[in-house]
Amino acid sequence: MSSEPVFQRVVIVGLGLIGSSLAHAIRRRWEQTTIIGFDISRDVMDRARKLDFCDDIIENPIAEVEKADLVLLCVPVGAMEEVGKIFGKHLKQGCVVSDTGSVKGSVVRALESHIPEGVIFIPAHPVAGTENSGPDAGFAELFEERWCIFTPLAETDESAVKKLREFWEGCGAKVVSMDAEHHDLVLAVTSHVPHLIAFGIVDTAINLEEVKKSEVIKFSGGGFRDFTRIAASDAVMWRDIFLHNREAVLEMLNRFSGDLDGLRKAIEGGDADSIEDAILRAQIIRHRILEAGEDTKEEDFGRRKQ
Amino acid sequence: MSSEPVFQRVVIVGLGLIGSSLAHAIRRRWEQTTIIGFDISRDVMDRARKLDFCDDIIENPIAEVEKADLVLLCVPVGAMEEVGKIFGKHLKQGCVVSDTGSVKGSVVRALESHIPEGVIFIPAHPVAGTENSGPDAGFAELFEERWCIFTPLAETDESAVKKLREFWEGCGAKVVSMDAEHHDLVLAVTSHVPHLIAFGIVDTAINLEEVKKSEVIKFSGGGFRDFTRIAASDAVMWRDIFLHNREAVLEMLNRFSGDLDGLRKAIEGGDADSIEDAILRAQIIRHRILEAGEDTKEEDFGRRKQ
Repeated sequence: MSSEPVFQRVVIVGLGLIGSSLAHAIRRRWEQTTIIGFDISRDVMDRARKLDFCDDIIENPIAEVEKADLVLLCVPVGAMEEVGKIFGKHLKQGCVVSDTGSVKGSVVRALESHIPEGVIFIPAHPVAGTENSGPDAGFAELFEERWCIFTPLAETDESAVKKLREFWEGCGAKVVSMDAEHHDLVLAVTSHVPHLIAFGIVDTAINLEEVKKSEVIKFSGGGFRDFTRIAASDAVMWRDIFLHNREAVLEMLNRFSGDLDGLRKAIEGGDADSIEDAILRAQIIRHRILEAGEDTKEEDFGRRKQ
Repeated sequence: MSSEPVFQRVVIVGLGLIGSSLAHAIRRRWEQTTIIGFDISRDVMDRARKLDFCDDIIENPIAEVEKADLVLLCVPVGAMEEVGKIFGKHLKQGCVVSDTGSVKGSVVRALESHIPEGVIFIPAHPVAGTENSGPDAGFAELFEERWCIFTPLAETDESAVKKLREFWEGCGAKVVSMDAEHHDLVLAVTSHVPHLIAFGIVDTAINLEEVKKSEVIKFSGGGFRDFTRIAASDAVMWRDIFLHNREAVLEMLNRFSGDLDGLRKAIEGGDADSIEDAILRAQIIRHRILEAGEDTKEEDFGRRKQ
């Protein structure tokens, strides 16, 4: 189903799960688009060459950045400023530059001073991922039916936004726009704090003296295992998310601590109704997520066939 | 693969996910075992009759309890005492009575006074489940390769334990024994507190004024969705677990709050190394769970095909 490319020459900076999946998705959709890949890690570049999902992998991509119609920054949020500093001044007039960072406010602040006049910067965040990372983890279907959130700046050229939307829709995503600050609040509660909590409970489990690690692992099927799945994503990426969305994460964490304390008190006081109500509220939300098609009802045996 | 039954006549009290799955598993393994089902809910019994996974569903099972070789109590932990009171005195000499409750200390306390001399009570907990409940949710494979934890009392007849082990192994499970108190501590951290946390974060998300419920649902794919999956299980079952394993749950919750506070401070202080270390610790545990075969590496697109 190859068709007229939205962008002729695309440079992807960062070839982890997201960057490599974008390369796969572009190649599947637009045969004629030239995809140039770059990564700070030589090992990742070697591996990407072997996997052959780009037309070229280049150690010094400046000359390619100068020719690109679209530059996609798929690096951890904390690396955005450095990447902007190195490549910003080489972007050609009319080029679209976008990113895939899970935090938007800090990315805007990190990049905007490095983007030359006449280059269109559109911050974006595909809400997609798996617990695996690196160039081997990428696949063309990653973005299918997933949301990609744009946080365009007020003055951004509408036609460029339209082009980037067409690009992401071609990769399978659904596009929605909101302001960066709101994005960071929404994602703090739907993604960042849930991950932080998952890291917290893993720490609790492994710090216990009364329960052996081997027991935690053995009996992880009762819920803990699913938290470790959530917690298994890339360490640098998540470290950067927490630090760069600090304010919203701390705010949401604070509220979560309050809500959890309410549950704690209900258990202490033997308040069966309050506990049951909380469980029923969760079930209603679960039901609405299923209704909205954001998850499937399929049972999770916990251990799917390999 | 039908073979000589371990128990000739089995009564299952409670025909939800676990009870109905046991009926399916027994029928698959031992054609000659007679399975009698009972549930407090008439609707559940009607549905179970239609689904036809028992040989008989009986409104008043006393006469069947009197003939049974094995009585399995698959009711919420909070209903055990009542069930013990009603059926205990009708159990025949040499009969094995067991349960499937997720808490063991309180079940032992609730049941032991109702079990007559000469009847062998072996508390058990199959660490298996899905987020669905009710007789329609049951399936024969639920226990395959999952742990079933026995917490036999000190004086329990070894040959009866061996028989019950053979029974559970025939249903596909792996059996392990420990004392009830230790079970309750292990499960508090690997199952009960993770569930409580999941209910807590759902509350946080739906109590926000700045973020709409529709947004939480729309962008749930970044982690939140997996928490609602964990949180979707049966409300009465979970309410009872929290109340009946109160001490261990509160203890583990307290430690979790401390660990989470450590992460909060690291974020506040911009302590990148501590945050990264916590993420790496979680990855090591994840890796060990995969090595132990307690989960698979298969990527979770978040939205598996129906």
